Amino acid sequence: MELIVRKYGGTSLDSIDKIKDIALKTKNDIKSNKKIVLVVSAMGKSTDELLRKAELISKNPSNRELDLLMSSGEIISSSLMAIALEDIGVQSKSLTGFQAGIDTNSSFGHAEIQSINNTRIKEAINNNNTLVIAGFQGYNEDFEITTLGRGGSDTTAVAIAASIGASICEIYTDVKGIYTADPNIIENAKKLNFLPYEDMLELANYGAKMHPRAIELGMYYNIPLVIKSSFDNNSGTLICNYEDIKKLKNGGLILNEITENRNKVSGVTSEGNISKITIKNIPDKPGIAAKVFEPLSNEGINVDVIVQNLSTDDKTDLTFTVKNEELDQAMQIVNKKSIDIEFESILSGKGYGKISIIGSGIQNSPGYAAKFFNALSDSDINIQMITTSDIRITCLINDKDLDKALKKVHDVFGLYK
Amino acid sequence: MELIVRKYGGTSLDSIDKIKDIALKTKNDIKSNKKIVLVVSAMGKSTDELLRKAELISKNPSNRELDLLMSSGEIISSSLMAIALEDIGVQSKSLTGFQAGIDTNSSFGHAEIQSINNTRIKEAINNNNTLVIAGFQGYNEDFEITTLGRGGSDTTAVAIAASIGASICEIYTDVKGIYTADPNIIENAKKLNFLPYEDMLELANYGAKMHPRAIELGMYYNIPLVIKSSFDNNSGTLICNYEDIKKLKNGGLILNEITENRNKVSGVTSEGNISKITIKNIPDKPGIAAKVFEPLSNEGINVDVIVQNLSTDDKTDLTFTVKNEELDQAMQIVNKKSIDIEFESILSGKGYGKISIIGSGIQNSPGYAAKFFNALSDSDINIQMITTSDIRITCLINDKDLDKALKKVHDVFGLYK
Repeated sequence: MELIVRKYGGTSLDSIDKIKDIALKTKNDIKSNKKIVLVVSAMGKSTDELLRKAELISKNPSNRELDLLMSSGEIISSSLMAIALEDIGVQSKSLTGFQAGIDTNSSFGHAEIQSINNTRIKEAINNNNTLVIAGFQGYNEDFEITTLGRGGSDTTAVAIAASIGASICEIYTDVKGIYTADPNIIENAKKLNFLPYEDMLELANYGAKMHPRAIELGMYYNIPLVIKSSFDNNSGTLICNYEDIKKLKNGGLILNEITENRNKVSGVTSEGNISKITIKNIPDKPGIAAKVFEPLSNEGINVDVIVQNLSTDDKTDLTFTVKNEELDQAMQIVNKKSIDIEFESILSGKGYGKISIIGSGIQNSPGYAAKFFNALSDSDINIQMITTSDIRITCLINDKDLDKALKKVHDVFGLYK
Repeated sequence: MELIVRKYGGTSLDSIDKIKDIALKTKNDIKSNKKIVLVVSAMGKSTDELLRKAELISKNPSNRELDLLMSSGEIISSSLMAIALEDIGVQSKSLTGFQAGIDTNSSFGHAEIQSINNTRIKEAINNNNTLVIAGFQGYNEDFEITTLGRGGSDTTAVAIAASIGASICEIYTDVKGIYTADPNIIENAKKLNFLPYEDMLELANYGAKMHPRAIELGMYYNIPLVIKSSFDNNSGTLICNYEDIKKLKNGGLILNEITENRNKVSGVTSEGNISKITIKNIPDKPGIAAKVFEPLSNEGINVDVIVQNLSTDDKTDLTFTVKNEELDQAMQIVNKKSIDIEFESILSGKGYGKISIIGSGIQNSPGYAAKFFNALSDSDINIQMITTSDIRITCLINDKDLDKALKKVHDVFGLYK
């Protein structure tokens, strides 16, 4: 018995007709030896509408109540989907996150899945050809309803795929797949057919639409992921481990990509609305970074690029970036006693953006970094910060230069080919 | 510590402003020794909107999925209410039916409460000044979400009041209380200040707005109920046991009602859209009625007035009424083998209505029945069937005569006084 998990996002579910279409597609794709588990987001903008109601009532609603409120959006779409499936003769059943055994911690608004008690999911799969699970939600040890925050429904889908040993997890969305750059900005951006988890993780971290936590889970449990459009039959982008991609290539699927000398850059990403915080003259000793970033993390603030300058006189400067909308909260935290360190001053500024090139192996191959920096320099773009990982090089530049930089770098690395 | 349960229906919750108003009223009414538990219905017409979505998808959605779908309506209003309370500084918390421990049977769409595991409710009451519970819903032994069907939120409220030993259960709605007759039809109908459970039960059974199951629960556990308007400060109608009403009256509250010779009719009710089914020539022996009515009850069809004619030759005719919209389903059941009895033929007809006079003691007092029948006869209205209970006399007449009959009977018994 092959099990497939398919996740549908809000834009794929924003009308009754779309729900019916997905039900029909599901019916057509079920085979005698193949069952499909659907994971659904809330319909269209319904989560925003619920949030708007809460905001009309209170400027500061508690996360516990917000989570309970928002969880209803996915419950509505999952039961409607099960009704649509049953209506065309497909045995089905919907499960809430609680019923599906999605056990999370208690971080309301951005809970993390701790385990999946899949007894009920397995029972429902045995008794039905399909199963619909409300994404984005779970419950904590006190039976409180939690939501998983950004990328929540994708994460639900991948976690369930891992838990039940699905052969693949397909993420249906409003784009045709993963591109070498944002096709809204770069006209000649190319859809990628294959991508290793690592590259996708960096692409997701650095601007692409999917949230990295879902990709991380897929990578950890080695669940092949497919990102594809709900609105056409395009094959999308397959995300799996590097060895499997090489096998696919050697199998003749994309022969023209087999070359030792291939371009190792998978894509270019950018992200705007970034703020920079610099804490000047802090003691350069072990544990300092933790003292800064733990209080921020506890409040759910995502710290992104971190750079620590060279130390002089046992003092150092620590610079990191946060999203513009989290700057005020982050500044309050670092200014307060909650960070228990001495420092001289704190500087902050808005109006930055990140541009990254992503590709497995670019760190081990000479020339990629230099080519990247030259491309920016040729366009008179000043680099504020640089960070790198094994498969990514990121530059912090002015927000207003982002699109120009993206076009130039996409061209320079020949990604339109 | 005094505990009060207040239930708010959909019309009381159909806007953000109304939710805020109820939160404010709740805040004002909390005292140091008084806590308030709110039970809420879904906002305005939101349940209808969810149902409409399901109907657009399927003509015959399963009750299991519908229940899960509809339960979200009350969850939304309960969390919004908790947010509104917290926003004005009232410690609060919302609980779903599952979280509140509302354990029901598995009759999706019209589940019955089996028990309330109130551990969590009590804990929430101890930790907060108010508590908001999603009405209309519970869960069965498989942790499936159920809804309680008609009168569901009222039933939730009364059951919780009984479970936690509340001093009173207040039902806030869009009418000022219980009237001697429907004030939309009878202009000079009078609001009743007090009413024994038994009379209210009959009024509810025979046309008044509240569902009898909630009143039955209140009567069984002796929880005083108040029906009152959300939109003014009218004192509403208190429903409690007869002894307590007599005490209130002797306490001087409504002296003019203390009289041996008082009018024992509390009110007149009517209900249209009734169909009649007659099964002709069935064997007149024990167990026959059960064989007819059990299959109907199993399918959730409410049989109302039942009349069995006098027996001739060990054969008898059995006549009963159902709602118009349930006639087709009822006819299918009685025509099928599911009733295991011999009969000659089955007749059915639509277009009937019931009119009833209600009052504790009217069966023991001469003259009420005759006065009632005469009133109808004087208006040239033909009586099709008659049934009576200790505190009620009901006539089945033509639907089109209902309003005329109601006016006449209300006048004849002087209920406008």
